[in-house]
Amino acid sequence: MAAYRGLRINGDRLNNTLQSTSTSWGALAASTGMRRLALSPEDKEVRDWLVQQCKELGCDVRVDRMGNIFATRPGSSTERKPIAMGSHLDTQPAGGRYDGILGVIAALEVLRTLHENNIQTHCPISLIDWTNEEGARFPGAMMCSGVWSTKSTTSLEACYAVKDTDGLSMKKALEDIGYLGDTPCDYRENGLECYFELHIEQGPKLEATGNKVGVVTAVQAMKWFAVRVSGVEGHSGTTPMDMRSDALVTASRLIASVSDIARTTGLGVSTVGVISNDTQSQATIPSGVEFIIDVRCSTDRMVQDLCSAIFKSFDEIVQRENNYTSYHVFRTWGLPESVFHDDCIGAVRSAAVDEVGISKIMDMKSGAGHDAAWVSKVVKSSMIFVPSKDGISHNPAEYTSPEDCSLGGQILLQALLLYDDDVKNGSLS
Amino acid sequence: MAAYRGLRINGDRLNNTLQSTSTSWGALAASTGMRRLALSPEDKEVRDWLVQQCKELGCDVRVDRMGNIFATRPGSSTERKPIAMGSHLDTQPAGGRYDGILGVIAALEVLRTLHENNIQTHCPISLIDWTNEEGARFPGAMMCSGVWSTKSTTSLEACYAVKDTDGLSMKKALEDIGYLGDTPCDYRENGLECYFELHIEQGPKLEATGNKVGVVTAVQAMKWFAVRVSGVEGHSGTTPMDMRSDALVTASRLIASVSDIARTTGLGVSTVGVISNDTQSQATIPSGVEFIIDVRCSTDRMVQDLCSAIFKSFDEIVQRENNYTSYHVFRTWGLPESVFHDDCIGAVRSAAVDEVGISKIMDMKSGAGHDAAWVSKVVKSSMIFVPSKDGISHNPAEYTSPEDCSLGGQILLQALLLYDDDVKNGSLS
Repeated sequence: MAAYRGLRINGDRLNNTLQSTSTSWGALAASTGMRRLALSPEDKEVRDWLVQQCKELGCDVRVDRMGNIFATRPGSSTERKPIAMGSHLDTQPAGGRYDGILGVIAALEVLRTLHENNIQTHCPISLIDWTNEEGARFPGAMMCSGVWSTKSTTSLEACYAVKDTDGLSMKKALEDIGYLGDTPCDYRENGLECYFELHIEQGPKLEATGNKVGVVTAVQAMKWFAVRVSGVEGHSGTTPMDMRSDALVTASRLIASVSDIARTTGLGVSTVGVISNDTQSQATIPSGVEFIIDVRCSTDRMVQDLCSAIFKSFDEIVQRENNYTSYHVFRTWGLPESVFHDDCIGAVRSAAVDEVGISKIMDMKSGAGHDAAWVSKVVKSSMIFVPSKDGISHNPAEYTSPEDCSLGGQILLQALLLYDDDVKNGSLS
Repeated sequence: MAAYRGLRINGDRLNNTLQSTSTSWGALAASTGMRRLALSPEDKEVRDWLVQQCKELGCDVRVDRMGNIFATRPGSSTERKPIAMGSHLDTQPAGGRYDGILGVIAALEVLRTLHENNIQTHCPISLIDWTNEEGARFPGAMMCSGVWSTKSTTSLEACYAVKDTDGLSMKKALEDIGYLGDTPCDYRENGLECYFELHIEQGPKLEATGNKVGVVTAVQAMKWFAVRVSGVEGHSGTTPMDMRSDALVTASRLIASVSDIARTTGLGVSTVGVISNDTQSQATIPSGVEFIIDVRCSTDRMVQDLCSAIFKSFDEIVQRENNYTSYHVFRTWGLPESVFHDDCIGAVRSAAVDEVGISKIMDMKSGAGHDAAWVSKVVKSSMIFVPSKDGISHNPAEYTSPEDCSLGGQILLQALLLYDDDVKNGSLS
C-alpha cells in the first residue's frame, strides 16, 4: 500500500487548464480542433507558459538541444535520477485537444498536487514536453524523443537539417522561438529513472469493450519512406498519350497499391498522408512527385514483410507503365516494435486497480507511435490510455470526457508514487 | 504584290532582345528555363520595360481591366481599328524562353522596323500582351483574352476572384503591380481589325516533316475541371484498413483513370497537372484532395465524349471503392474548338510563300491553346508556328533556333502589311 493513497489530483483544474490553454494557443475556428504545429508561434507561447508554471512550483527547468523541456521537482535522494512523466504539446495541422496535450497538462497537474500537498518524494519528479512528436511540420514523428534515446537512425544533426514546407530548417525554427537549449539531448547525460506517459487511445477498443483504462504493454513497429517519382515535363495539349512520362499517373498507381497491398496481405496498415507535385500547373505533365508512406504492424518482421510486398508491387507497376517514369526512396526512418517494462506496467496496473479502485481496465498494444516508445529503448517505461470517443484522433472531432481525463491524471499520480515507493524500498527488479 | 516586299526586320535585334529580357526577368538558375508567373515581380518588370519601349516608338499604350496591354502605332486611316499582333509574356513555373515571349518580342521588333523605316500603314498597328495566358499561377489558361472576347464562361468578376496558392486574388495582384487598368476589357469597346499571333509549335510535327513554318488553321477544343475528393480524416496507425475513407487513395484511382480513359478511347489527351491535399501530414489519412483535369480533342464533340467517359469511370471507381469517399466537380471552364479566318490564314500563307519565299510550310491545327483562339471568336485571326526542338515545351529545354525566330518575325511583318494593303484596297471578304 502506497504512502499517499488518499492523495487526489484536482480534476477540474486539470480540465480547465487543458481547455483554456488549447483555446489560447492554436485553436481552430468554429470547432474544438487544434493547429499547434511544432515550434510555431502557438507552440512557443504554450511552452513559455508551461515553463513559467513549472518554475512557480519550484521546479528546475532545462531545455535540451532539440528543444525538449525537462521540469524537475527535487526528491529527498540526491543520487536518484528523476521519475518522469510527459508527452507533447504539438498537434497535427487539424488535430484535437487531447493527443499529447493531455499527457503534459496531466503531468503539470501532478506537479501542482505534489506541491500544494508538500509531498516529499524519494526520487526527483520530472515533467517532459517532447518536441515535434507529430512530425507534421518537420517530417519525422517522435523526432526528439528519438534523438534523446540515441536509438533513432535520424541523428541530431539530421533533425536540425529537416525543413518545413517553407524551407525553414528545424534548427533555425528552434533558434527563432528561443528553444535551442544547451542541455545534451542524450539519455546518458540527462537520464531518467523511468518514464510514464498518459495518452488518449486514438482507437476504438476501450470504448467498444466498455473499459476505462488501457495498461499499455507495447507499441507496434513503424516505418516511413519518402519516395520520389520522376518523369518528364511536357505540354498537356501537344504531347500524345503514348509519348508521355507522367510522374503523377505513376505515383497515383503506386499510392493506390500502398493501400491495396496492406489489404491483400493483412499484415498491418499502410498510408500515404503527404504528396507534393513539382510543376503544379494545369497545362504541364508532372515531372516529379514526392510522397511519404507510413507502414505499421505488430512486429518488426511484419513491417519488413509488408514493406517488401509494397516495393515489389511498385517495381511491377513501374515495369508495367513502361513509360520512362521511375521511383526512388530518398529517406527512410522508423520506430522498431517497443515492449514496455514489467516494473512500469505493474505500477500502472496497481495504481488503477489497487490505488484508484478501477476494475474496468485492459492490457493493450498501441497502434499509434508515442515518445514512450523511444524512451522505453533506454529507460523502463509504460503508458496509460484513456478512451477516445468513436476512436477518432488526428481530427478536430477528437474527444475524451473530463472524467476520463481526470481518471488518467489520477492514475498517473499514483503510478509515480508507487514506483517511487518501490525505488525507496529497493523492491524493484 | 505588297508595297514593302523588301522590308526586313532586324533578326539579331529580335533574338538579342528575347534573350536579354528573359535573362533579366524570370530566368531559372543553371538553365535557359523561365519562371515568370503572371503578375509576379518579374512579370511587372518586363511589362514596365515593354511599355517604355513602345512609348519610345510613339505608340499609344493602354492597359485594360484585366491587365492586357495594347500598344498602338497610328495608321493613316482614322476610321479603321488596329491590325493587331501579340501573345503573352508570362510562363509556366518551369517553362522556356519562347512560348508566348517570342510572339510579343517579335511584335515589338515589327513595331521597331515600321518605326525606323517610317512606314505609314493604312490601319493602326497594335502590339498586345495578354495577361495570364498560362493560368499557372491563377488557374484558367488564356484567361484574359477570354474575358476580352466576352465568349469565355469565366467572367471578369470571376477572374478577379481567382486566387493563387498563397490566397492572393487576381484583382489584388493586378493592383499590386499597377496593371489594373481602366480600358474596358471587351472587344466591343476596344476592338481590332484582325489578329495575328506568332508562336512556337510546342509539338514535333514541323521538325518531323522538315517544314519551317506552320500556317495554323484551327485550335483544338479544350475543357478543364476542378475536382474535389472528400473522405474522413483519421490516424494512420489506429484506423483499420477496412474502416478508412481515404481521399488520396480514391483520388489516385481517379487520376490514373484520367490517363487510362484517354488511351482506351483514343479521343484525345487528358492530364492531371495540379494536385493538393488538405491535411498533408504523414500520420493522417487524407480527408480532402483537389485536382484539375485538362481534356483536349480535335472537336467539341470529342471533348464531350471523352469527358463523359472519364466521369463514367469516376462513378464506377467511387462505387467500387465503397468507402464513403466521394467526388464533385466544383469548377468547369473551357475553350471551344476555334477555326481561323481565311483572310488571315491567306495573309500568313502568302507572306511566307510570296513575300518571304519559304516553300517549306504546312497547314496545321494547334494542339495547345492560345490567346488567338479566343480572339478568333470575335475578330478575324490566324497564327504562325515555328519549330520546337524535339517538340518540347512547358519545360526549360524548350528551344527554337534564332533563324526560326527571325523567320517567324519576318512573316509576321509581311502578313500584317499584306492585310493592311487588302484593307486599303477593299479586297477582303
